[in-house]
Amino acid sequence: MQKQVKFEQAVRTKYPEQVVIVIARDKKGKANPVTLGWSMFASGTPPMMAIALYKGHYSVKCIRHSKCFTIAFPSADMAAAALFFGSRSGRDTDKFAEFDCKTAPAREIDSALLIDAVANFECTLQSQTVTGDHIIFVGRVVAAHRNTKRKKRLYSLAPGHKLGPAS
Amino acid sequence: MQKQVKFEQAVRTKYPEQVVIVIARDKKGKANPVTLGWSMFASGTPPMMAIALYKGHYSVKCIRHSKCFTIAFPSADMAAAALFFGSRSGRDTDKFAEFDCKTAPAREIDSALLIDAVANFECTLQSQTVTGDHIIFVGRVVAAHRNTKRKKRLYSLAPGHKLGPAS
Repeated sequence: MQKQVKFEQAVRTKYPEQVVIVIARDKKGKANPVTLGWSMFASGTPPMMAIALYKGHYSVKCIRHSKCFTIAFPSADMAAAALFFGSRSGRDTDKFAEFDCKTAPAREIDSALLIDAVANFECTLQSQTVTGDHIIFVGRVVAAHRNTKRKKRLYSLAPGHKLGPAS
Repeated sequence: MQKQVKFEQAVRTKYPEQVVIVIARDKKGKANPVTLGWSMFASGTPPMMAIALYKGHYSVKCIRHSKCFTIAFPSADMAAAALFFGSRSGRDTDKFAEFDCKTAPAREIDSALLIDAVANFECTLQSQTVTGDHIIFVGRVVAAHRNTKRKKRLYSLAPGHKLGPAS
């Protein structure tokens, strides 16, 4: 049976929710990673993906500047990196300098890949739409990579940034 | 270590992926449910959600006609309904007439709720953006409901529409 509740209470049924790490360079060339829960695929042919990013995030400036970004699926053992990248701001932190997380240059865009991630998708900025307090950035996937080892994705499992594998 | 692969191969790392059922009425008033894997939250204040819908789906016409839709989180025991709603077209099928799935009228929009779902979000159409072979519909959540029982969400667990709980 359904009971009408506040939006926030209904949102609490969303778990587990997949986590992605989005990487874009700022105007000084610093690659800035941010952890997000709101992402989805958006097209098969051509391949596209979408993320919803809070308006106040530094990554908004980075994506608008560089017009490209990587979407990485962190592996279940990358919870500490995901928490760090999601709790600091690139405005005053060089996150990749402060947290040890192996990266490699992207192939087709000026961004970075996460070497230990489950997969990485290199995206060129296709469109942006303001949605309330967030902005939906749609990226066209121009290169894709997956880990040579079989790894589990990282999920948000409960409120309070409890992260881990879904099963 | 990362290896560059085709998009389709990298996509296969996405599981488990959450499933939603979207309901919108066509111009004859028939409530048409469709099962989707591509959805996300898109704003906190005001609350918004986004779905990516294949251009050819009948639901595109329904949402454009009625300008509102329900996003339901099916429960883990609704796999059969999700498969049925995802494999038939509303063009030639009255899915709710052919598959026994309890519904109730939505409160704030002219749509239906799924009584056994984990949660239901009533949305008014906020924006639409064409993304390749899909369209992103953004809905403003005007009412939310959750099941009075604690239930697990339904996920896509592997290619070939293998559906079940994530854990």
